Amino acid sequence: MTKEYFMREAIRLSEENVKNGGGPFGAVIVKDGEIIATGVNNVTRHCDPTSHAEVNAIRNAASKLGTFNLEGCEIYTSCEPCPMCLGAIYWAHLDRMYYGNTKTDAKNIGFDDSFIYEEIDLSPEERRLKSERLLGDEAIRAFKEWDIKEDKIEY
Amino acid sequence: MTKEYFMREAIRLSEENVKNGGGPFGAVIVKDGEIIATGVNNVTRHCDPTSHAEVNAIRNAASKLGTFNLEGCEIYTSCEPCPMCLGAIYWAHLDRMYYGNTKTDAKNIGFDDSFIYEEIDLSPEERRLKSERLLGDEAIRAFKEWDIKEDKIEY
Repeated sequence: MTKEYFMREAIRLSEENVKNGGGPFGAVIVKDGEIIATGVNNVTRHCDPTSHAEVNAIRNAASKLGTFNLEGCEIYTSCEPCPMCLGAIYWAHLDRMYYGNTKTDAKNIGFDDSFIYEEIDLSPEERRLKSERLLGDEAIRAFKEWDIKEDKIEY
Repeated sequence: MTKEYFMREAIRLSEENVKNGGGPFGAVIVKDGEIIATGVNNVTRHCDPTSHAEVNAIRNAASKLGTFNLEGCEIYTSCEPCPMCLGAIYWAHLDRMYYGNTKTDAKNIGFDDSFIYEEIDLSPEERRLKSERLLGDEAIRAFKEWDIKEDKIEY
């Protein structure tokens, strides 16, 4: 199977998802030359703002393999990931990413990907999202407890 | 209830979660002065790299309210969100964010938040994550279909 084959499957899922009432996004995860999981955008159907194609493909792959670490896997996504999904790809330790449409293409049909990339680049005070730091001296306790815990599972 | 009250609840969840074998993170979502949902980090317990406190709190709140749009809600998180969770906060349209620990505090106990922020800031070619654009001319079809769809639910 070629990388074009896997990308065409992600694209096929994205088109099918539009017909089914979801957003125009699809993703597949490949390990050892085989598709082990897929995902489509289910934000509106599942009332879940985190239900993007890449997040769903990662969750499905991790569940299937029984691990939170997807080293050895690659993701093919019909569109360049938004910051949420790109973050998920890093946390999952995927080896490589292939993408079709760009974040500019997504912006051109009304999606916020580019806006969120711009916001993340700013300091918290400069962002459109209002935010405030609070009780840092109390919050640090859990970090200290984690730091000294001997039987913790790191990720 | 004060904002300190809600932050202390997020902090309490983060400490409890360390005791229960999860990561040191907790979050609560507040609407009209009441906690409507909570979340803790379940990455290792649920074999899900996307199972961060903020993502879980958002999913729980959206499920409870039956909507993907959490305007009118605020999030209190025991640590400054990673890019995945910050992206989720934007997609959820939360009004405001309060946080306790910072991404530097998270880095100091071994979490990748700062690294991922640095990576997202780079162009795809400069990132540690290898990536490649593929078949953009075919991927764009789903976006065109979405763009002309008359009964689509935008988000």
